Amino acid sequence: MRGAVIHAPGDVRVEERENPAIVAPTDAIIRVSATCVCGSDLWDYRGVNDVTRPTPMGHEYVGVVTETGDEVRNIAVGDFVVGSFFASDNTCEICEAGYQSRCAHAEYVGAGGAQSEYLRVPLADGTLVATPGMPDDDLIPSLLAASDVLGTGWFGAVAAEAGPGKTVAVVGDGAVGLLAVLAAKQLGAERIIAMSRHASRQKLAREFGATDIVAERGDEGVARIKELTGGYGAHSVIEAVGTQESMMQAIRSTRAGGHVGFVGVAHGVELPGEELFFAEVHLLGGPAPVRRFLPELIQLIWDREIDPGKVFDLTLPLDQAAEGYKAMDERRAVKTLLKP
Amino acid sequence: MRGAVIHAPGDVRVEERENPAIVAPTDAIIRVSATCVCGSDLWDYRGVNDVTRPTPMGHEYVGVVTETGDEVRNIAVGDFVVGSFFASDNTCEICEAGYQSRCAHAEYVGAGGAQSEYLRVPLADGTLVATPGMPDDDLIPSLLAASDVLGTGWFGAVAAEAGPGKTVAVVGDGAVGLLAVLAAKQLGAERIIAMSRHASRQKLAREFGATDIVAERGDEGVARIKELTGGYGAHSVIEAVGTQESMMQAIRSTRAGGHVGFVGVAHGVELPGEELFFAEVHLLGGPAPVRRFLPELIQLIWDREIDPGKVFDLTLPLDQAAEGYKAMDERRAVKTLLKP
Repeated sequence: MRGAVIHAPGDVRVEERENPAIVAPTDAIIRVSATCVCGSDLWDYRGVNDVTRPTPMGHEYVGVVTETGDEVRNIAVGDFVVGSFFASDNTCEICEAGYQSRCAHAEYVGAGGAQSEYLRVPLADGTLVATPGMPDDDLIPSLLAASDVLGTGWFGAVAAEAGPGKTVAVVGDGAVGLLAVLAAKQLGAERIIAMSRHASRQKLAREFGATDIVAERGDEGVARIKELTGGYGAHSVIEAVGTQESMMQAIRSTRAGGHVGFVGVAHGVELPGEELFFAEVHLLGGPAPVRRFLPELIQLIWDREIDPGKVFDLTLPLDQAAEGYKAMDERRAVKTLLKP
Repeated sequence: MRGAVIHAPGDVRVEERENPAIVAPTDAIIRVSATCVCGSDLWDYRGVNDVTRPTPMGHEYVGVVTETGDEVRNIAVGDFVVGSFFASDNTCEICEAGYQSRCAHAEYVGAGGAQSEYLRVPLADGTLVATPGMPDDDLIPSLLAASDVLGTGWFGAVAAEAGPGKTVAVVGDGAVGLLAVLAAKQLGAERIIAMSRHASRQKLAREFGATDIVAERGDEGVARIKELTGGYGAHSVIEAVGTQESMMQAIRSTRAGGHVGFVGVAHGVELPGEELFFAEVHLLGGPAPVRRFLPELIQLIWDREIDPGKVFDLTLPLDQAAEGYKAMDERRAVKTLLKP
C-alpha cells in the first residue's frame, strides 16, 4: 500500500509500505477513506521532536473495516468507523471514568501511520465507533475531524468547563482552537473570545460561534481579556498551542476559581508553582479522551448540526502529503485533508 | 499590647506593639482569644523567605469583637468570631464563586500580626463569621483550627474531590495534612491513605479517619499508592507540603482523570508541562478560600461532630511564642496554640 513516512525534518515521502495485518485478536484493519495532517505532526516536520529513523505518519482516520480479529464483537467488516489516536479497551476504571486516552491498555494507533491506505487499529471494540450507515461524501471531512481535532477541541472546552453563563477564551487559532470555539458554542457558552491575529481564521472562528476576537498576545492579550471581563478574567480558557507563552497566557487570562483546559501538546513548558498557587485556577489537560465524545459528536455531524469539516481548507490526494505538510508549516493552510 | 515580631530567621520576640485602630469604616477590631503558629510561618523562621525587617507574625485567630467601623452591619461588638487569613468582601464575582481568598478586594489579615492581643480585621462583614454564642473553652482550639489549618485541609479535600467511593491519599502529615484526612472522612471518602513516617502523626491520622498509612516517600511512596489502588493511583490526592518532591509525589500518585488539591504554599516548585500533560490529572490549589467553608465548619465544631483542635499538641502563653516556633521547627510539636 501507499503511506506517508517522515525521513527527516521537512522530508515527508509517500512510498510503498507493507499492508497491515491482524496482530492481536482484538485488532481490526480499516481501509482509510480520509486522513489528515495534525498540528502535532508539525513538531516532527519542524524538527522540534527528533526524527531518528523513517517513521510512518498520521493518527487521524475514518474508514471502512476490512478485517477483524477473532475477539472483535462490536465492529463488523463493512462498517464505516471513526476512531481516536489512542486505542482503548473502554472497560478499565480509567476508561469508565471517561479518560480513554489514558486507558490502562492504551496503545498509540498512530504507530501504524494513518496517512496511508490501510491501518491496523488495536482494541477495535473499545476504540472504534461505527456511524449509523455509510456517510454521504460531504460528511467525511467532519467525521474525520471528530477523530482528533474536534474531539480535542471539545475536550479542551469540557476541561475548561465551558457552558451556559460562561465567558470562554481560546488561545490558539489552529484547527483545535477553532473547533474549541465550536465546542464552547455547542456547550452553551455565553461569550466566546477567540485569540487570533489572522483574518481568515478570525472569520472561521466567528462562523463557529466566537463573539469577540482578541488579536493581542502575551501580556497584552491577557490585559484585553481582563478588560472584556470586568477585570476578573475569563471563566474558562482553552489552551490549544502547547508553548510556554501560550500556557502562561491561558493561566493569566483565567479568573481565580476558573478553569483552564490545555490540549496543546506541551513542549518545553515549565509551570511556576508559586504563580500557579496564587492564580488558583483549575487546570486539566492532556491527550483528549476522544472516545468519550465520539458517539455524541458523530450524531451531531450525522444530523448536520455542526460542520467541523470546515477546518479543512486544503484537500489533496495522499500522494501529495508532502505539499500538505508544507502548506500547514507555512500557515497557508489551517489543516490538510488527504485522500488515499 | 503584646505581640510576636520576627526580627530574623530563628528570632521571634514578643514585644510591646501599638494597639490596632479602625482604619476603614469596614474594619473591626477583635481581642484575640487564641492564635497559633502556622507551618507557613516556619518559612520565615527557617529563612526560606527573606526577613528584611521586624515583621508582626501570625494570621490565625479567634476572638471577641471590641470595636467596629461605621459600615459594619453583620458583626457586633461582643460577638465571638472566626475569620480567615484573607479578608474578603464576600460580594464580588470571585467571592460568589467561592474563592474568597482571591477576592477582588482581598487583603492579607496577617499583615496586622494575629499573634498578639488585638487584631484589626478589614472587610469585617465579609470576613468574620460569628459563632452561635460564646463558646465553651474546650471548643476554642477547634474554632481556631477552622480559621486556617482545618479550612485549608478542607479546601484541599474539596479541590481533590474527595467523596463517597473515592480513595484519597494525603501527602504531608503536618496539621493541614492531618486535617485533610479529617475532611476527606467527613466528605465520605471510602479509603484514606495518610503518607507519614512519624508514629504520633500516624496515630492522629488514624483518629481522624485514615484507613491506611504509607511511610514511603518519593518514587517508593508513589509505587505503594499504585500497589494499594490496583495499579491506577488514587482518585484524589491532597498535597500539603509545598515542595517540588511533594508536588511530584502527589501528581504521580493520582490516577489519570483524578484530582490533585494542593494547599502547601509552593516554594521553588516548577511543574514539567509535558509530564503534567500526559498525567492528565485535575490540578487545583492555592490559598484556601476558608470563608466559603466557615459556616459549615463552625457548625460541625459547635455540634461536636469534629474535633480538629486535636492538632494542637502544645499550648503556651503568647509571651512564649519563641518556644512555640522552636518546638514546631524541631518537629517536637505538630502545632502550637498561643494564648494572649
